[in-house]
Amino acid sequence: MKRIFTEELPKHIGKEVKLSGWIHNLRKIGAIAFMAIRDGKGIAQVVVEDKKLLNILETLKEESVVSVYGKVSKEERAPLGAELRVKKIEVLSKVTEDLPVVINKKEMHANIDTLLDNRTITLRNPKQSAIFRVQGEILKAFRCFFEENGFTEINTPKIVSAGAETGGAEMFSTKYFKKGNAYLAQSPQLYKQIMIGVFERVFETAYVFRAEPHATTRHLNEYMSLDMEMGFIDSRMDIINLHQELNKYMIAWLNKNSKEDFEFLEAKIPKFVKAPVMKLSEAQKILEKNYKIKCLGAPDLDPKQEKAICDYTAKKYGSEFVFITHYPAKKRPFYTKRDPKNPAETLSFDLLFRGLEVTTGGQREEDYEKVLGQMKEKRIDPKGFGEYLDIFKYGMPPHGGFGMGLERLTAKLLGLENIKEATLFPRDLNRIDTLLSTDKTQ
Amino acid sequence: MKRIFTEELPKHIGKEVKLSGWIHNLRKIGAIAFMAIRDGKGIAQVVVEDKKLLNILETLKEESVVSVYGKVSKEERAPLGAELRVKKIEVLSKVTEDLPVVINKKEMHANIDTLLDNRTITLRNPKQSAIFRVQGEILKAFRCFFEENGFTEINTPKIVSAGAETGGAEMFSTKYFKKGNAYLAQSPQLYKQIMIGVFERVFETAYVFRAEPHATTRHLNEYMSLDMEMGFIDSRMDIINLHQELNKYMIAWLNKNSKEDFEFLEAKIPKFVKAPVMKLSEAQKILEKNYKIKCLGAPDLDPKQEKAICDYTAKKYGSEFVFITHYPAKKRPFYTKRDPKNPAETLSFDLLFRGLEVTTGGQREEDYEKVLGQMKEKRIDPKGFGEYLDIFKYGMPPHGGFGMGLERLTAKLLGLENIKEATLFPRDLNRIDTLLSTDKTQ
Repeated sequence: MKRIFTEELPKHIGKEVKLSGWIHNLRKIGAIAFMAIRDGKGIAQVVVEDKKLLNILETLKEESVVSVYGKVSKEERAPLGAELRVKKIEVLSKVTEDLPVVINKKEMHANIDTLLDNRTITLRNPKQSAIFRVQGEILKAFRCFFEENGFTEINTPKIVSAGAETGGAEMFSTKYFKKGNAYLAQSPQLYKQIMIGVFERVFETAYVFRAEPHATTRHLNEYMSLDMEMGFIDSRMDIINLHQELNKYMIAWLNKNSKEDFEFLEAKIPKFVKAPVMKLSEAQKILEKNYKIKCLGAPDLDPKQEKAICDYTAKKYGSEFVFITHYPAKKRPFYTKRDPKNPAETLSFDLLFRGLEVTTGGQREEDYEKVLGQMKEKRIDPKGFGEYLDIFKYGMPPHGGFGMGLERLTAKLLGLENIKEATLFPRDLNRIDTLLSTDKTQ
Repeated sequence: MKRIFTEELPKHIGKEVKLSGWIHNLRKIGAIAFMAIRDGKGIAQVVVEDKKLLNILETLKEESVVSVYGKVSKEERAPLGAELRVKKIEVLSKVTEDLPVVINKKEMHANIDTLLDNRTITLRNPKQSAIFRVQGEILKAFRCFFEENGFTEINTPKIVSAGAETGGAEMFSTKYFKKGNAYLAQSPQLYKQIMIGVFERVFETAYVFRAEPHATTRHLNEYMSLDMEMGFIDSRMDIINLHQELNKYMIAWLNKNSKEDFEFLEAKIPKFVKAPVMKLSEAQKILEKNYKIKCLGAPDLDPKQEKAICDYTAKKYGSEFVFITHYPAKKRPFYTKRDPKNPAETLSFDLLFRGLEVTTGGQREEDYEKVLGQMKEKRIDPKGFGEYLDIFKYGMPPHGGFGMGLERLTAKLLGLENIKEATLFPRDLNRIDTLLSTDKTQ
């Protein structure tokens, strides 16, 4: 008999079916047992009345894996409006120990350390797994949006050579055969720019690595970076406008594909409103005037200021997103284009969402001499950058792009307090799990 | 005026348009100049007759970036059946040096080292870039197939803790804060298995890292691994059959979306035929009998034998794919399920395509005690594997999966001799480019 998924149960009322999954919950009431069977798609109610079958259940703990066979009945009180009355049970994997944590309540009532210390089990909780089903949809929406807009997907190296820009201080390093030290890529930035000459419009969704010794609710040491880069732009506004379109597209996508998960997680999909765009200095003036926060002249917003400006724009414009532009050149990397009207400022932007920076981007400098000059200003030796610098000698149109953090976006969309809740197996200063990579053959 | 892409030219005959791109080719014939303008979508023919404009062209070398304005005419001899007669030229990026390599001929006529030493420029050659447009389509087809089959996309860590299985010898290592050495993931295997308990059916497309000091046409030190894992299987045949469906889907996808690129690259999309499935020992018997290759009893096929067996099955079954199963337990990792009929053999498989292994997979052991026993047999200390081993204690259905190498598949589909030709920026024993990762802000 072919197995059906739990979600298909209501379509089979009156028929004999087979369900396979984990015993998510098992309650005995008198001579009846109610089981919640969890599979990859959901949870179904299953009823056992037969005495022999009840005896089998006596030997099984929750999370045992079973196949149950029986007839589907209409049952208004069951979650799917239907339940299965069991005639046969097959035990596929028997659990004899109690779980280290309770995972079959709607709320885990566990702190972040308990969640992460028992990750391989706690992820089975439906609220935990729903987070990552939504994350999968965000990723899919990002890719589809750029594909529909004529962008080509690229895969750029994660093992890169010497990190001149930061002196390697914030990069993980590894010995690379006889070539000496190599580093784990902090961003696909320079490769994205190279690929402008090839495809003009490119995107990549891949891990990047940051060796910063952070222990915050906002930082990870490896995270999924959603990157795009685009040639032949008129100004940074082309990039910002495309990001507005992406937001609109993603919101529509989530409304279409993830509405139930958002409701289940008691989270709110944002309404699409074109986000306001303001200079850093304007934002700072607003913070000084409306929030009494002294910050004018600072090179960036701190977390408290990011929250305050989001609060302001949500109230004033009804937008939970806000673009902040014109960060000072001294705080932005060498490849950022300066504002011709004021070279101390750059044509860069951040996107803040619900109080947190989720995207960083901007227009890039495309003039060879200027790129060189900006490297020297930042005391970067152009020597190691030969191949990258060639692209400016051999024809480079005006271009720009951005990188968005998938885990930050997921956490903010779902109202999670800690970015680690939006990461399957987070890596931070204190946490690298005990799992290992396996050898090459599967 | 809004820019159009080169591929849109035939739709605008008789109209005024703007094209932007690189001067791919520039020929002067008497008082006329013919330009090939290359953008992200293709190449268009552009004609310049005006004397002032011809003077501008005098100052421009190939790869200069321009916008050209003018009227579109029908022109049978032009590649798109149309050409643009230029009225105005805007120079966006002026090239004054000759390119280090010629990239505007159909064939590069360059060896692999020249191709890779000048990678940021040679990728602009249309035959080079077409390889990666096809690669993008393969990746998209892989993801769509599994999404359509109810699989959830996951992102698993690339920085992992101690590599007990191989003693870390074939893994890149990096210092992880105060936690000591960490390693770059060689495969998402153990994480995929953990996620069976969460979503049952998962896939991931991400880089994996191998520190093997190879210098062959088949190996890379970082490559894109297309991975899937699936629970509630009846046998390894469920995985093999799903792979057959994937092949069918991919072939149809490429016929639909990449036919022109295959023709341009003079490569042949394989015909879909259900691939034969044979035991390693059967394949070895065929090789002994039909190819006079002594190999019976060996634990694997060598490259020459892989070519020969593919040659045999192509002739006999019309299939360029062949599944080889039942590799010996001593050559397969601890998590591989043994054949109950002969525990010296495993329920594993490789998929060979056009003479090369492109996929490795199989059924996994799901019984806790057996997994432990198989670890011990391979002298692996279960200590570091606590979280992973928990999944077998707390309910694990029969499951299996595979990992496919994107660059190998691309190379074989396109008839490329070296896997590095199917990698944007390959990493091998001798090659790590001079590019670096950039700091965190863009």
